[in-house]
Amino acid sequence: MDLATLIGLASGTAVVLIAIFIGGDFMAFVDVPSMLLVIGGAMAATILRFTLADVMAALKTGISAALSQSRATPSMLIVEMGELAQKARKEGLIALDGIGISHDFLKKGVQLCVDGMTFEFVKDALSRDRDLYIERHEEGEKIFRAIGDAAPAFGMIGTLVGLVQMLGNMEDPQTIGPAMAIALLTTLYGALISNLVALPIADKLASKAQLEYVLRTLVIEGTLHIQNRTNPDVMIEFLSAYLPESQREAAA
Amino acid sequence: MDLATLIGLASGTAVVLIAIFIGGDFMAFVDVPSMLLVIGGAMAATILRFTLADVMAALKTGISAALSQSRATPSMLIVEMGELAQKARKEGLIALDGIGISHDFLKKGVQLCVDGMTFEFVKDALSRDRDLYIERHEEGEKIFRAIGDAAPAFGMIGTLVGLVQMLGNMEDPQTIGPAMAIALLTTLYGALISNLVALPIADKLASKAQLEYVLRTLVIEGTLHIQNRTNPDVMIEFLSAYLPESQREAAA
Amino acid sequence: MDLATLIGLASGTAVVLIAIFIGGDFMAFVDVPSMLLVIGGAMAATILRFTLADVMAALKTGISAALSQSRATPSMLIVEMGELAQKARKEGLIALDGIGISHDFLKKGVQLCVDGMTFEFVKDALSRDRDLYIERHEEGEKIFRAIGDAAPAFGMIGTLVGLVQMLGNMEDPQTIGPAMAIALLTTLYGALISNLVALPIADKLASKAQLEYVLRTLVIEGTLHIQNRTNPDVMIEFLSAYLPESQREAAA
Amino acid sequence: MDLATLIGLASGTAVVLIAIFIGGDFMAFVDVPSMLLVIGGAMAATILRFTLADVMAALKTGISAALSQSRATPSMLIVEMGELAQKARKEGLIALDGIGISHDFLKKGVQLCVDGMTFEFVKDALSRDRDLYIERHEEGEKIFRAIGDAAPAFGMIGTLVGLVQMLGNMEDPQTIGPAMAIALLTTLYGALISNLVALPIADKLASKAQLEYVLRTLVIEGTLHIQNRTNPDVMIEFLSAYLPESQREAAA
Amino acid sequence: MDLATLIGLASGTAVVLIAIFIGGDFMAFVDVPSMLLVIGGAMAATILRFTLADVMAALKTGISAALSQSRATPSMLIVEMGELAQKARKEGLIALDGIGISHDFLKKGVQLCVDGMTFEFVKDALSRDRDLYIERHEEGEKIFRAIGDAAPAFGMIGTLVGLVQMLGNMEDPQTIGPAMAIALLTTLYGALISNLVALPIADKLASKAQLEYVLRTLVIEGTLHIQNRTNPDVMIEFLSAYLPESQREAAA
Repeated sequence: MDLATLIGLASGTAVVLIAIFIGGDFMAFVDVPSMLLVIGGAMAATILRFTLADVMAALKTGISAALSQSRATPSMLIVEMGELAQKARKEGLIALDGIGISHDFLKKGVQLCVDGMTFEFVKDALSRDRDLYIERHEEGEKIFRAIGDAAPAFGMIGTLVGLVQMLGNMEDPQTIGPAMAIALLTTLYGALISNLVALPIADKLASKAQLEYVLRTLVIEGTLHIQNRTNPDVMIEFLSAYLPESQREAAA
Repeated sequence: MDLATLIGLASGTAVVLIAIFIGGDFMAFVDVPSMLLVIGGAMAATILRFTLADVMAALKTGISAALSQSRATPSMLIVEMGELAQKARKEGLIALDGIGISHDFLKKGVQLCVDGMTFEFVKDALSRDRDLYIERHEEGEKIFRAIGDAAPAFGMIGTLVGLVQMLGNMEDPQTIGPAMAIALLTTLYGALISNLVALPIADKLASKAQLEYVLRTLVIEGTLHIQNRTNPDVMIEFLSAYLPESQREAAA
Repeated sequence: MDLATLIGLASGTAVVLIAIFIGGDFMAFVDVPSMLLVIGGAMAATILRFTLADVMAALKTGISAALSQSRATPSMLIVEMGELAQKARKEGLIALDGIGISHDFLKKGVQLCVDGMTFEFVKDALSRDRDLYIERHEEGEKIFRAIGDAAPAFGMIGTLVGLVQMLGNMEDPQTIGPAMAIALLTTLYGALISNLVALPIADKLASKAQLEYVLRTLVIEGTLHIQNRTNPDVMIEFLSAYLPESQREAAA
Repeated sequence: MDLATLIGLASGTAVVLIAIFIGGDFMAFVDVPSMLLVIGGAMAATILRFTLADVMAALKTGISAALSQSRATPSMLIVEMGELAQKARKEGLIALDGIGISHDFLKKGVQLCVDGMTFEFVKDALSRDRDLYIERHEEGEKIFRAIGDAAPAFGMIGTLVGLVQMLGNMEDPQTIGPAMAIALLTTLYGALISNLVALPIADKLASKAQLEYVLRTLVIEGTLHIQNRTNPDVMIEFLSAYLPESQREAAA
Repeated sequence: MDLATLIGLASGTAVVLIAIFIGGDFMAFVDVPSMLLVIGGAMAATILRFTLADVMAALKTGISAALSQSRATPSMLIVEMGELAQKARKEGLIALDGIGISHDFLKKGVQLCVDGMTFEFVKDALSRDRDLYIERHEEGEKIFRAIGDAAPAFGMIGTLVGLVQMLGNMEDPQTIGPAMAIALLTTLYGALISNLVALPIADKLASKAQLEYVLRTLVIEGTLHIQNRTNPDVMIEFLSAYLPESQREAAA
């Protein structure tokens, strides 16, 4: 469970609601046609950009990725790969066949070594696997970023529609204020959707993809060391460069 | 038929029309000279940037590409290339001569192998063909993006023209509101053309070019495996890295 | 003659003029001090950024490049290089000495081959020549882009100057409207110069440089094939990848 | 102690406070709910983008990095490495074992040489160490930049909330001015947080990371020269290219 | 003396002053606290981003670089290097020892050749020297660009401060106009500093660094030709690719 996402979303919504309630009338901020225009317009423009299936998939994986937390950490993986290297060095690569491995990508790499693939093949296959994994996950980021771009645009479109309607009917000066208030609501909705939901989730997906990239690069290097039967201590020394300095002792 | 384009365009237009009709007078949003200014100005600036022929070609291919859907999928191509590799391994490359192949680019690659071209030649020729194909299709994206940039600019120009006219004739306060409403219409038109049509189509073209790039890269790798008479199972294993994990069994 | 430039410029100007005349008073849009401020300020800022000589040269070459049209097309060059390759193969490279060649850059490349330069030398000399040619032409693009950035900035500066003057003298409410109309004119001028002239010409120069880059890359590859005495048919097959699919038969 | 940070922050705050006090009422610029909205919203959006731990770590290291000053300078390091090279040349690399070295990264590099690692290993290990060090410090920059993006966005959201509230209650014209003043405060807070604190600190972290990158590249080159037992004078000549011309004599 | 800088600055200032004087009251545009806020705030934010010493150095070298004009031109250097190559070919590299050379960087390169350094060493030393020279001069560009970013931001902050003060004290409608005029002055100052001074100087520094990069690359190639004792005519032919076509005869 990624607490940061929940805390961020909850506290961001809270401060906006507090600002609204302090000013008084909450219902002055609710206008269903304005919501329909901003949310509907932003979704329509996003579906147009991609495909319906991609947008649905991105919303699903995006939300689950934003809320979930990867359990594997670089230092855990370094310790585990150290043990595998130890075993491979003593008993041969074949001893790693069918061994329990916590991380799927490491499992795949070890299996390729056990199957006797060449150094180049293992390197190429794992690197491409990593790159395509990242590419597929960047799709989700792009879709949330598209929503974050489209929502303020449709907010502005809604405000323009409201202003044109208001300016065409100015007989009763009493109605100008409230009409303009409603016209501004779409801009407010657009800004909230973009800045409180869509763009932060896009950035969260990007930073999770970045973390996963570092993790998988670490696993690729470790796997190649295991295949080469590098001395486990040298390997751990080498891989610790991937850790922030404060965590290096933990792995060594 | 790319349903996402139609659904996006239709639902986006619908939410804007609903917002307009709820506010009442639809005709208050129709002003022919304003439309002429925004559409004409945006087209003029776009023609100036490129050439008349390019803009016409881009509009045509852009709209057809935005509406059409490629039938070939990576997993279908992997299966087909697996069969070709099987045949080439058993009966020699020459057996592939004149064989029925669904995808034109794969057909071309196989033909080069059948003609006995070297590994390097096949790789270079196909890679350049792919890169130039993408380049030519990026042209269409650029043109729609130029329209998406120019439309809001001419929307603003129209609003400035309207404001200058209104401010110079403020004797009758009754006309100020409606005059300003009309002045704002060009900004609204510019925002709608840009955010509901031009920029989403530019992004759709970009994402289709991206898909085609991955597909053709997959075909290039597959063709080289076929030429090398790689074991078809190893080849399929290798190429499955191009598939999202959920589709890998389908191809294997 | 590049018709697109003329048509774009003329039709863009026309739609703006129509919008102005429909609203009535054309002279309300002419204010010489405002024009002086926007055009003078934009030119001053651009001269400051570059040098007087560069700006003058860019204006001259920029306008001529924007209006002229290259006569050479990739398919014409491929045909011509095919004939040269044919001749070189039959009669030796020396037979190309002094032969009539339509494109200067190709002429230069052929001359280097005739002079007996090595493959590496020809490749390096032509590639550098191409790159420096493009670099020098990108200068013009940068200068028009700088004008396109500076014009709206000085438009805004002019409007701020006008607003400060207006706000300091509000005794007579009758003058507020016209004063504000004049203040807005500089913003309008800045937007027109930027969006109707400077930025489109910058983009046109960029796309012409891009075309020339492809053309010269094609010539470099063709020249190297000629030097290598490649089979002319193989060479044409190879170079056709530079053509859009619809034109390939024409060259083959 | 990085005086520039303190002087910049203090003088920037001072000029804003002076502008406020000259206009009179300081308390007109203090509105606790507005502060809560902008600061709370910006922090919430930033936590959402990253993780709670990352944001806390970035705030801590960011502030300490912004305030602290690296003691090592390129010229000091060149002098020190010159002495190490001298000693290594005369007495062998082993003589550097346990020697007092001022900079941790240089110490690590020398230790790798003393341990008899190969040229390639030392180069790879130090380069990766440097790159990961920079990567980790770029995280802090990203977080401050995210705050600098989110603060004006929530400033605008606050102003929109205030405007909607004001426009819905315009019975008493007396309250319109003060209500709008309060509505504008959030935009002011957002601009101040972004331009006076968050973005400058992000840039400062970037420029410190850049400095550290040059320093560590210098140390890597020097270490490799020491390992190769280059002539110390030649090495110093070579490394002085890293110094601005005015400081070159000092090191030579 | 770089006339373009002076002419640009003078004419840009002139058109703004003319626009102010035509509207009447010059003193309406002078407000010392507003100037203090914009200039002080922009400087404070810039110092915060970099260091006091860097900002001072950048202002000094930036202004001198913006005003000075390099005397060396590519064609002069090609002629000079042609003579050096002639001499080196006839009398040996040693004949170049102590010879009078106009450009410092060429002098340094020739000295390295005279000292008998290897081809690789000369190439590496000169290339790094060039790259670090450019890097140090890019620092100045960055600082002026930071000022150009900060000035409009503090202009907006000043206008917001002025608006909040004005809106809180609207008892006397007579004062609203002048108060708002003063509030707008900071935005005007920010736009002028940014668009008339800081950003153009940043661009001028960038284009001078670019020129110097080309010049030094030319010198590096020429020096390597001299060391190789290339035929001077071949060398000049080769180096002329660095010249615009119109200047090629001059050097040949």
